[in-house]
Amino acid sequence: MHPLFRGVPAELVNKFIAQASPHGYPKGRIIFMQEDEAERFYLLVSGWVKLFRETLDGEEAVIDVVDGGHLLGESVIFENDTYHCGAEVVEDAALVSMPLSLLKEAVETSTVMAKNLFTAMSRAKRLQTKELEHRTIQNAPQRIGCFLLRLIPKNTEKNIVLHLPYDKTLMAARLGMKPETFSRALNRLRDETGIRIRGASVEIDDVKMLSDYSCSACSSAYPCEE
Amino acid sequence: MHPLFRGVPAELVNKFIAQASPHGYPKGRIIFMQEDEAERFYLLVSGWVKLFRETLDGEEAVIDVVDGGHLLGESVIFENDTYHCGAEVVEDAALVSMPLSLLKEAVETSTVMAKNLFTAMSRAKRLQTKELEHRTIQNAPQRIGCFLLRLIPKNTEKNIVLHLPYDKTLMAARLGMKPETFSRALNRLRDETGIRIRGASVEIDDVKMLSDYSCSACSSAYPCEE
Repeated sequence: MHPLFRGVPAELVNKFIAQASPHGYPKGRIIFMQEDEAERFYLLVSGWVKLFRETLDGEEAVIDVVDGGHLLGESVIFENDTYHCGAEVVEDAALVSMPLSLLKEAVETSTVMAKNLFTAMSRAKRLQTKELEHRTIQNAPQRIGCFLLRLIPKNTEKNIVLHLPYDKTLMAARLGMKPETFSRALNRLRDETGIRIRGASVEIDDVKMLSDYSCSACSSAYPCEE
Repeated sequence: MHPLFRGVPAELVNKFIAQASPHGYPKGRIIFMQEDEAERFYLLVSGWVKLFRETLDGEEAVIDVVDGGHLLGESVIFENDTYHCGAEVVEDAALVSMPLSLLKEAVETSTVMAKNLFTAMSRAKRLQTKELEHRTIQNAPQRIGCFLLRLIPKNTEKNIVLHLPYDKTLMAARLGMKPETFSRALNRLRDETGIRIRGASVEIDDVKMLSDYSCSACSSAYPCEE
């Protein structure tokens, strides 16, 4: 069960189930746009979704790229009821949407539900604060290193082969870089830490070399909690 | 009354008042450090406070610089109970601190209180998302322009004299820039928009020139809602 519903009375969970709609969306599908009126929130079951904002000039800022387990659009309740960013499927996604009005009602009537939503929002804010820190202090190769470190399974230290979860252009945008900066940074990261890149695969012989290089410019030591 | 307590039953507000401690802190005072165990949250009444994170290398990332009306440390309840960032007074500040345990209890027993805290957290997250957008897309002169535009009183369009709220080194850090980048960017902003800078004063003849220049690289048109 998703942490949002953990410990919530079955009767209330059933209300959500009764009003839930499943969606299977292909790559490229826009789920909602920034400033759209928010009527539903989404639980991403699988796949990858890009959260983005578009400037008046038409440039796009990627705020995050999220995978299974993430909630989308849940944080607008009790505010101005428009989505904070747009959401677009970047790898085929399965989602479940539920009415925000029900979520609003549920946190007003169930202490457990309110607590769960607070926990989710607090966590999301902490991650975003960390992201702000990274975009401010880490240089481009360190940011890529940090991204790769997060893909490594726990307690694995040697001889790892990672598959990049989505394409390098999006990876660059997710890290707040222009594609040409990303290419140069990836080369530098390779030279500094001995990783090898073959298409969408990355081979890492020694995690410590990578974490020493990347995490020195972060407020958390490796492995970080999330 | 602060929005957090708006509509809250007097009995509950009195509980907060009974356990509130006022603090008058001078510039330079650390209120709390990142990862400190969080026992109290703070309502900033006046002055300016810097929120920051420090990397293992000892470099500092300024996450935000906030003024009167802001809550500090309120978002850690229901999570791991350590502060997400450090907080340091940068212009003499008056604060009121209250126990987080009481806030936790209050949102569990009062729907209005829970709603108010959700609203505050949702707003904070939206502002942070916008900040991420800015650090990603706006160039340095545009970011300074955006900072100045936020200081302009509503419905004022011509012949404005602004006083910078804190020193330029901190302003640079707040905008995620190195001091030398900041100086160059300020000169460029002056050349592009006709503003004049005299010490801590900035003279703006025409707000539209400044907003045209800065807000084209933002997802909101001027004037923005916050």
